[in-house]
Amino acid sequence: MTLLVHLGGIDEQEWADAFQAKMPDLKIVTSSDAFDPAEIKYLYVWKPRDDVFDGLDNLEAIFSLGAGVDPILKHPHLPKNVPITRFVDETLTQCMSDYVIANVTMHHRELTHYRHEQRQHFWTQYYPAPATDIAVGVMGLGQLGLDAAQKLTMLGYQVNGWSRRPKEIEGVTSFSGDAGFDQFLAATDILVNLLPLTSDTRDILNRRTFEKLRRDVMPHGPVMINAARGGHQDEDDVVACLNDGTLGAASLDVFKTEPLPKDSPLWDLDNCYITPHIAAISSFEGGVELVARQIESYERDGTLQHVVDPAQGY
Amino acid sequence: MTLLVHLGGIDEQEWADAFQAKMPDLKIVTSSDAFDPAEIKYLYVWKPRDDVFDGLDNLEAIFSLGAGVDPILKHPHLPKNVPITRFVDETLTQCMSDYVIANVTMHHRELTHYRHEQRQHFWTQYYPAPATDIAVGVMGLGQLGLDAAQKLTMLGYQVNGWSRRPKEIEGVTSFSGDAGFDQFLAATDILVNLLPLTSDTRDILNRRTFEKLRRDVMPHGPVMINAARGGHQDEDDVVACLNDGTLGAASLDVFKTEPLPKDSPLWDLDNCYITPHIAAISSFEGGVELVARQIESYERDGTLQHVVDPAQGY
Repeated sequence: MTLLVHLGGIDEQEWADAFQAKMPDLKIVTSSDAFDPAEIKYLYVWKPRDDVFDGLDNLEAIFSLGAGVDPILKHPHLPKNVPITRFVDETLTQCMSDYVIANVTMHHRELTHYRHEQRQHFWTQYYPAPATDIAVGVMGLGQLGLDAAQKLTMLGYQVNGWSRRPKEIEGVTSFSGDAGFDQFLAATDILVNLLPLTSDTRDILNRRTFEKLRRDVMPHGPVMINAARGGHQDEDDVVACLNDGTLGAASLDVFKTEPLPKDSPLWDLDNCYITPHIAAISSFEGGVELVARQIESYERDGTLQHVVDPAQGY
Repeated sequence: MTLLVHLGGIDEQEWADAFQAKMPDLKIVTSSDAFDPAEIKYLYVWKPRDDVFDGLDNLEAIFSLGAGVDPILKHPHLPKNVPITRFVDETLTQCMSDYVIANVTMHHRELTHYRHEQRQHFWTQYYPAPATDIAVGVMGLGQLGLDAAQKLTMLGYQVNGWSRRPKEIEGVTSFSGDAGFDQFLAATDILVNLLPLTSDTRDILNRRTFEKLRRDVMPHGPVMINAARGGHQDEDDVVACLNDGTLGAASLDVFKTEPLPKDSPLWDLDNCYITPHIAAISSFEGGVELVARQIESYERDGTLQHVVDPAQGY
């Protein structure tokens, strides 16, 4: 009974040491250790390499370090019928909402407009509308989307939510499925993407989507914030729509290729706000706690929490 | 029985028309109309000129359009024993909290650091701490400070409050008076000023105050946000402390002299974020409602709401 820590070579020993301190009776190896693949029962994984699953014939559970499991699900050698669990962590949720609130309020309060005015020593009074006049639309109402939507509601924003299935959240106007998508967009001034990446949501942030957003509330046009996956956005469309005014601005934390290539036109767009995939990271302490709880539960009665449904993709 | 609208000459007719529509039986004049000063019973005032009170021998109530009444209280010809009422308005409170949240989160999430990195096409991952690790200290816990403190608490920040008298607010660590000031500062990473301007609070934002803030949490040093009055800040100290690192950054919406003089060194400080006194404005609809309610109440039984205590200064 061995836990393999495979994190694309990053900080594996640090995690292994923390797991060992927490679970002294468990054998733990990293991807650079010598080990017999047949002894691996549990896999803790992030940035899986092509050979990660080779020989793991006795694998019983896969624990994802990332909140998004798309890199695992799309792995060509993913063994069938081994349960995969998502990373769920309060600190990750907190940081994601911190990022969302900071970016929504930055656009709403036109902080960069005033920064530009300041550089020219301009004193021109213009009063942003109260948050109560602005509708933020949150795509994805899982753990992350729910927390962001609730916090935006508490700040006074009108909040719309969109998810695959209808959800009831106090203070949030809920839309769902393909049937509700256009209505959701038509009622939204600032679009926040926190969806899981699946075949249904790939490239969902495209020109057709942006054109349906409400255009008359935000002074420079609607705003898009993507903190989920680069795979959600058609980057050619994003560039074109930021250039032609279909989008007033965008905040992007994720990209089709990361690091964002040096020659991407996104870097130099004045109305595009780039961060290098730092909105939220799974916390070390939270990860150690979660995996220890999962293994304890599985050893006790064979149950696991936060198990992914591969058919849904999250 | 006449209401005089005196707003330093700004938009007086627009307000007078709205008051007339709301209160058809009331005589209403603006400062540019010809009128007998002895007939003025009520004064609606903002930016009072030197002669505003001349001949108003039968004045019974003064309604301030601004949330801060310091320009009225310091007027050399302010009549004694005429009650002054503050402006209290949900929209003003909402906008002030919008400004505070946008600026706290901008500093916390280092949005301008990433903007700078973006300009150079740099992809360097650095993860801001969760809001739960950061303490925001709100000075002043009246209507505005209370709302901001509660919203910051809901976002996960540690929140300290400082006021003249002790207050009990759920989730807020309360400090009060001179005795509690140093402790309050020592526990604060981001300082938000929403105090009324009085002789006690003039120039309270000075080097001695900034030096007492906690220095080890915010990566570039403590941050100061002033959305109350320019009179609260010693601007020479602010400039010096932004230059020597005593303050990591400041967001200033108010200044000793407004508009901020073209030659102020604040304009060109890269870690100073200037807005032209636009954090929050009293709303037109809210003002019309409030004054109509005050006059109705006063005519009915002689009572007024939100009356200022001149001895306290607010």
